[in-house]
Amino acid sequence: MTIRIFEPLFHARSATFVGASNDPGKWGFRTLKHMIDGGFEGNIYPVNPKENEIQGLTAFKSITDLPDTPDLAVIIVPPPAVPAVIRECVAKGIKAGIIITAGFAETNAEGERLQKEIVETAREGGMIFTGPNCNGLMSPRNKQYIQFPSFYVPPGPIGIITQSGNVMDSLSYQIGMHGFGCSVCVASGNEALLHSEDYLEYLGDDPHTKVILSYIEGFKDGERFMEIAGRVGKKKPIVMLKAGKTQAGARAAASHTAAIAGSDAVFDAICRQSGVIRAGSLDELLHMGLAFLRQPLPKGRGLGIVTAGGGWGVMAADACEELGFDVVKLPDETIRELDKLLPAWWNRGNPVDLVAGAAVDNIFKSIELVMQCPSVDAMMFLSIMPAMRKETFDQPHNAVEREEWGKQMIVAIANAMDEFNAIADKYGKPLVVASEHMWANQYEQAAIEYAVGGRNAICYRMPGAAARVLDALVKYGSYVNRKS
Amino acid sequence: MTIRIFEPLFHARSATFVGASNDPGKWGFRTLKHMIDGGFEGNIYPVNPKENEIQGLTAFKSITDLPDTPDLAVIIVPPPAVPAVIRECVAKGIKAGIIITAGFAETNAEGERLQKEIVETAREGGMIFTGPNCNGLMSPRNKQYIQFPSFYVPPGPIGIITQSGNVMDSLSYQIGMHGFGCSVCVASGNEALLHSEDYLEYLGDDPHTKVILSYIEGFKDGERFMEIAGRVGKKKPIVMLKAGKTQAGARAAASHTAAIAGSDAVFDAICRQSGVIRAGSLDELLHMGLAFLRQPLPKGRGLGIVTAGGGWGVMAADACEELGFDVVKLPDETIRELDKLLPAWWNRGNPVDLVAGAAVDNIFKSIELVMQCPSVDAMMFLSIMPAMRKETFDQPHNAVEREEWGKQMIVAIANAMDEFNAIADKYGKPLVVASEHMWANQYEQAAIEYAVGGRNAICYRMPGAAARVLDALVKYGSYVNRKS
Repeated sequence: MTIRIFEPLFHARSATFVGASNDPGKWGFRTLKHMIDGGFEGNIYPVNPKENEIQGLTAFKSITDLPDTPDLAVIIVPPPAVPAVIRECVAKGIKAGIIITAGFAETNAEGERLQKEIVETAREGGMIFTGPNCNGLMSPRNKQYIQFPSFYVPPGPIGIITQSGNVMDSLSYQIGMHGFGCSVCVASGNEALLHSEDYLEYLGDDPHTKVILSYIEGFKDGERFMEIAGRVGKKKPIVMLKAGKTQAGARAAASHTAAIAGSDAVFDAICRQSGVIRAGSLDELLHMGLAFLRQPLPKGRGLGIVTAGGGWGVMAADACEELGFDVVKLPDETIRELDKLLPAWWNRGNPVDLVAGAAVDNIFKSIELVMQCPSVDAMMFLSIMPAMRKETFDQPHNAVEREEWGKQMIVAIANAMDEFNAIADKYGKPLVVASEHMWANQYEQAAIEYAVGGRNAICYRMPGAAARVLDALVKYGSYVNRKS
Repeated sequence: MTIRIFEPLFHARSATFVGASNDPGKWGFRTLKHMIDGGFEGNIYPVNPKENEIQGLTAFKSITDLPDTPDLAVIIVPPPAVPAVIRECVAKGIKAGIIITAGFAETNAEGERLQKEIVETAREGGMIFTGPNCNGLMSPRNKQYIQFPSFYVPPGPIGIITQSGNVMDSLSYQIGMHGFGCSVCVASGNEALLHSEDYLEYLGDDPHTKVILSYIEGFKDGERFMEIAGRVGKKKPIVMLKAGKTQAGARAAASHTAAIAGSDAVFDAICRQSGVIRAGSLDELLHMGLAFLRQPLPKGRGLGIVTAGGGWGVMAADACEELGFDVVKLPDETIRELDKLLPAWWNRGNPVDLVAGAAVDNIFKSIELVMQCPSVDAMMFLSIMPAMRKETFDQPHNAVEREEWGKQMIVAIANAMDEFNAIADKYGKPLVVASEHMWANQYEQAAIEYAVGGRNAICYRMPGAAARVLDALVKYGSYVNRKS
């Protein structure tokens, strides 16, 4: 397939909603409402034989009645009515569809028959479609939000392909909350016609997509996926979360999207072969994706840790060694240089425990000294407070002053993240940061996440999360450097 | 030891700070400042030979000069000066101390010698002390905040024992952010005199402590720990996070708190034998602790899942089966009853996928139907929005109305949590909930967490976290029901 056939799907200039509704309890209401509220700039044609106006837009009795041919048809009518709608789309010359409707191959034999019928009609008519049994797609640059939740992820470099609508929703939501954005998000549903690997090929060619995140329950065509992933992975990182690993999960997947989950070992092999990075949870999927946007790829597993908290250092060392990192012994020369910067009672080991009392300049110099060690391929820094170029223990009691102080603290964190990023760039080695922000109230916590995202960075909450991100960076680094 | 000897440590009526300072860069400043700002109501006597006044309080030249005998001495002088201070404390009749100072057994032979000396002096003088090399303790009911960060966790039912100060800080901070509070938190440092098991014994007897969370790098006396934990665990749950599992972690632990990490397998055996629930990360430690405050203990591993999101259901089934849960086949009778409540295309399996369109009353009824199955010992509910007794898709565009709407949504979530808790109580089986809140902005996210905590509940962010909590509940349930 070429990237061009996806244009009407992902960058529609106009769209019809078949099954549009004025009833707020219906999907035909919500998907249309979010398309309107999201600010779509092209024509929108609601289709519903019983209405003259829907959500302020002129409604049409059928697709045949539309004044022109829209790029995209969003279909939200009951299953038995879908085949006729697809035939009408084809007759009208509509090139792309999204079938939200559930009740096809994931339910019973009749559903399976209906699904076959719509695939054949669309194929013969030169139409592509997403779904059925999906909850839409988002193309933020095109302000094209065909979705269930009232959240509009901004444009950005992250592409999402998922076989679960609520995974698309929660992932894009979290991306927005972290101050990042998406190129295209698609919930592929039953994948009757377009498969995950088709979207993957599209996102591989899409210049706006820098990293691809995917949730999958089962492959329709594992070999083709491998071939495409292997190719796309050389251009940009692909991170995947596979569900349906266990028997209970596989049963649930079958009834969810009619997916055949397949063996977990086979999936692991596919990932290794094709350079796909595997995430263990939704949070990991997000964390790894954001790291790929910013961090240099490490050349090996030699690790340096600098920490402003002893316990966090121990937990980080555990988490990293368990993942196969070598928390290296620092050269004597480096220890001697660090001796000049740190309080007399520092631990002279790796993790470098800064202990209280190190000056902020010396903290950054210490990180650089560790970065300079040839045996260090990647670094982790823990507990950001002492690395902030702001007195952090002067919290005012007065509420107005306290609020202003909080804002300054957030800026100071974002600035510190810039300094960390600059060191990573200077040495071409990743430097991931994990920290609590114990001065912050709940609202400031959330604001920190967003402000740090504005610097194209993420500050992980826990050392374990930061360790898993480093592992993903190493794995992808070794894939792109593989001779083949 | 009896609970009484801990009184001057945890419920001091007055305290002296030896090494108190007016220099904001020093620990002697921060610990004293936080004690004052925390609202401690007893006398505070700063001791510093060079000052007449410290942070607005009259300063004294030495302990000998104090006008009376305080309950507690907080010691923040350099290591070589500590033995003399302990001798003065004993001479004055002070019964408890906290030695913040680092530079003892965790550094070198001289440090080890000093540490032995202070232990001997204190023992002979009938004085107990926490540390050295720790960052204090908090006793919120006594407004006694001797700590590094400017965060004051409120009083509540959670006791914390940790060998890392920054773990105490981040854990108590997260507890506060989740709307809960602490009975006593102690950072035990090098445990020269008082060990983790001593604090455990104290918290076991403390009527205000309902659950005990602990971070440990190594035991001073594994057998005594086991004996005490086994006893305390029959009265209240103990959840522990063990660090120093790997070689890198163990090395870091040795230089952090002079802890001998010991084998991970041995720790596992100790936990199983003594009913200690093991957490894999700080987040798990928190999540498990909060669950024990509220949830009934399950009798087995039969699990029912009800989900408003298909993908989340698959991920939950995976996570639960991997932990050894049996995601049970629902009886035909239950399926028939559910048929009356759910849309025709529901999946007729477990997880029960509610699909869009189930009425809110029917959602709660569906959960009850699954609860009633004899094979179900515990339940998980995923994605809270459809279970809220409030129209959730009517988000206003106007900013003022939007803010008010957000507040109503938060109340609706808290109310839904009450309904879930009531079902758990009615059937005596745990019901854990995981959900995103995709309508919420960053600030509302944080407010939800806090509001839900006000109902003595927690809504987990991800199915995996909820699964690990259920596993902890089962393990503890089987320990307390064990005949012995």
